Amino acid sequence: MNELRGKKFALLVENLYDEHEFWYPRHRLKEAGAAVVVAGTEAGKEYHGKVGMLATADAAFSDLKAEDFDGVIIPGGFAPDYMRRSDAAKAFVKAMNDRGKLVAFICHAGWLPISAGIVKGRKATSVGAIKDDMVNAGAEWHDAPVVVDKNMITSRRPDDLPEFMKAVIAFFGS
Amino acid sequence: MNELRGKKFALLVENLYDEHEFWYPRHRLKEAGAAVVVAGTEAGKEYHGKVGMLATADAAFSDLKAEDFDGVIIPGGFAPDYMRRSDAAKAFVKAMNDRGKLVAFICHAGWLPISAGIVKGRKATSVGAIKDDMVNAGAEWHDAPVVVDKNMITSRRPDDLPEFMKAVIAFFGS
Repeated sequence: MNELRGKKFALLVENLYDEHEFWYPRHRLKEAGAAVVVAGTEAGKEYHGKVGMLATADAAFSDLKAEDFDGVIIPGGFAPDYMRRSDAAKAFVKAMNDRGKLVAFICHAGWLPISAGIVKGRKATSVGAIKDDMVNAGAEWHDAPVVVDKNMITSRRPDDLPEFMKAVIAFFGS
Repeated sequence: MNELRGKKFALLVENLYDEHEFWYPRHRLKEAGAAVVVAGTEAGKEYHGKVGMLATADAAFSDLKAEDFDGVIIPGGFAPDYMRRSDAAKAFVKAMNDRGKLVAFICHAGWLPISAGIVKGRKATSVGAIKDDMVNAGAEWHDAPVVVDKNMITSRRPDDLPEFMKAVIAFFGS
């Protein structure tokens, strides 16, 4: 318990985010004692999930500085299609990866790391629908509930969330 | 990790359940290695949350036997108003409490334990809206993120979920 006390995470959000993949990490990181900054295209804006749950961004992507965070978590749904249009979101994810900080993403979230140019040569998974995009971007794609490649942790879908978050927490315990 | 391996929980559901309060425990119990049986008025039925997320019942309330479970978790929303109409749901919650097994509930979920007749003389919390119902049923009500009275664990609202589930897990570690 409190395994992540003193750690700070950026949790990205945009419209049509997957509710499970946003809210489970959000509550789970807090349970583990971490600070969580929800970041979207605009600070203070409410974003709606695929079903309609609302989530408010604490910060804009352009406010994020990699040196301030220990990890970034990117939920899926169709939100990553919007996130990848943001140069600031791409630059932040690339800067986190360049520093070897945790970059964890699930389901359709791979679109943003693809556009950030960080998946080439990395072991990773994703929802089946974007497997081709991941492979074309140079990832070594595996069909597994969670794939850990150094600082990159990936999962396929909401059902994998328990293993995804277990791996996220284990990353900081190792 | 895997703190709840070998433990089995009933997670109750009905229409207008609170999505946070159902899904966070559901994923979190699985992350901790527990088995989870989702139980509603009818087995196999899909129930819709307040926002519209769907959850399917694995079992009916009338299928549940207290000897098969280590704990019951009751989410809020308006679902507990439907649950308390079920004699089987009330009997199961009472039987769990009679055996000293974990009975954990959050927000509006207190309505079911009230109707099961188990809150009298117990320290507990709830959403403010049903404080009067809890007090009138004999509870010693406290305004706190989580209240633990032996086998009874209660919280007020979705924001308390991290502390609620931490207390649920700690119950089995003690």
